[in-house]
Amino acid sequence: MKVLIVFAHPNPSSLNAALKDHAFGVLRKEGHEVQVSDLYGMKWKAVLDADDFPSRMDSSPLNVIMAQGEAYGSGTQAKDIAAEQEKLLWADAIVFQFPLWWFGVPAILKGWIERVYAYRFAYGYKDGTNAYRYGEGILSGKRALVSVTTGGPEADYGPRGINGSLDQLLFPLTHGALFYPGMDVLPLFTVYGAMRLDEAGVANAKLALEQRLKRLFVDEPIRFRRQNGGDYLDRHTLASHIAPEVSGLPAHVS
Amino acid sequence: MKVLIVFAHPNPSSLNAALKDHAFGVLRKEGHEVQVSDLYGMKWKAVLDADDFPSRMDSSPLNVIMAQGEAYGSGTQAKDIAAEQEKLLWADAIVFQFPLWWFGVPAILKGWIERVYAYRFAYGYKDGTNAYRYGEGILSGKRALVSVTTGGPEADYGPRGINGSLDQLLFPLTHGALFYPGMDVLPLFTVYGAMRLDEAGVANAKLALEQRLKRLFVDEPIRFRRQNGGDYLDRHTLASHIAPEVSGLPAHVS
Repeated sequence: MKVLIVFAHPNPSSLNAALKDHAFGVLRKEGHEVQVSDLYGMKWKAVLDADDFPSRMDSSPLNVIMAQGEAYGSGTQAKDIAAEQEKLLWADAIVFQFPLWWFGVPAILKGWIERVYAYRFAYGYKDGTNAYRYGEGILSGKRALVSVTTGGPEADYGPRGINGSLDQLLFPLTHGALFYPGMDVLPLFTVYGAMRLDEAGVANAKLALEQRLKRLFVDEPIRFRRQNGGDYLDRHTLASHIAPEVSGLPAHVS
Repeated sequence: MKVLIVFAHPNPSSLNAALKDHAFGVLRKEGHEVQVSDLYGMKWKAVLDADDFPSRMDSSPLNVIMAQGEAYGSGTQAKDIAAEQEKLLWADAIVFQFPLWWFGVPAILKGWIERVYAYRFAYGYKDGTNAYRYGEGILSGKRALVSVTTGGPEADYGPRGINGSLDQLLFPLTHGALFYPGMDVLPLFTVYGAMRLDEAGVANAKLALEQRLKRLFVDEPIRFRRQNGGDYLDRHTLASHIAPEVSGLPAHVS
């Protein structure tokens, strides 16, 4: 199979880099083809702005959605954006490796999503509307594994941990960015207390990630509800008979 | 009073820009001093990397926390970072104006948080540990108002809306980035369906924001639980007698 690793950490000797390198080795050993998008190494442009649309005819102020759709449709996207879309289309699975910074993905990775996820590619798929999203879309059938490190201890990210539960903090990524264009999203792989790991702790983390990677195409994805699977009314709100006692983010997992 | 507006949108004729301009006018008219950090206009550097530490003595790979703490402590931070910290210390309230992109803040604003929120400034306050956070910290006593626009309709962001409830999607910002260093965070101000607003809709949005701004120093903040207020055990987990039936993000609001 084909696996893309998207990696976002500024330090090539960090735990994150070690996990990324280990993932690369494990996946190759398993017989997969592997590509790596090392966002810091590539000096990835994080900010979505008018420079992303070199062939834009319109001299009026930037309308992001229109400009994305036009550039995507006419094959005039910025080269770095088109290259990442190609990698996504090539891959059978995408592994994200990054540290949790202020309870979300680093800005450079957020900017990768904003720029690569063009209108008519990742949203407005097929017909320009929201008809195809959450469980179907251009990345349908591909798997996503989020591998994240935290500075804080596991207790802080538990169901009643002070930072908020990690599953819910990363819902905008797992549900909002990965499931949205169709990916099957695996449960998070997390290394907590990353700064306090000793040598044995690092070895354990690598081993645990290795075990998850070996089951990359086997493990059961998070059971996010599909927009067009019958649980939502008019693609907006959960029908009243679906998990009637649940509200908030957990309501979207069956 | 003194108000800082942090603004993140690439288009100076967008609804977001109109709301920012309107906020500026209203706040001035109310007698406040106002500064604006227009992140796109300033060409704000979104990516936290080794270039942020021009005086770093260490030639080894970047350790973000150590480098931030050293630069902050020795007054050798990058000038753009120090300038934003000064504005935060100057302000009595901070208004954030941005569009919701992929269910969170735009990358340029995420990078503002990552770079401006240095170690020993916004985290590791006072003693380098987590002893002072969530309700106390360097921005203690200041107010924060998040003013956000969404492309999607309100139904998609309700308690059982398909995108997830907006309050919970933005918890990493309101709780994790604003309440963490001590700010009193007001309930979100949201303009839904921003792309479909007609002239009257824009006028209504401006008026609604104006009403919120006039109560900027009056409205009741979100009742996030304070780390050191007695609800958490050892600064990690909610005590079992606190909202025993609630888990996930809502458990942190009393």
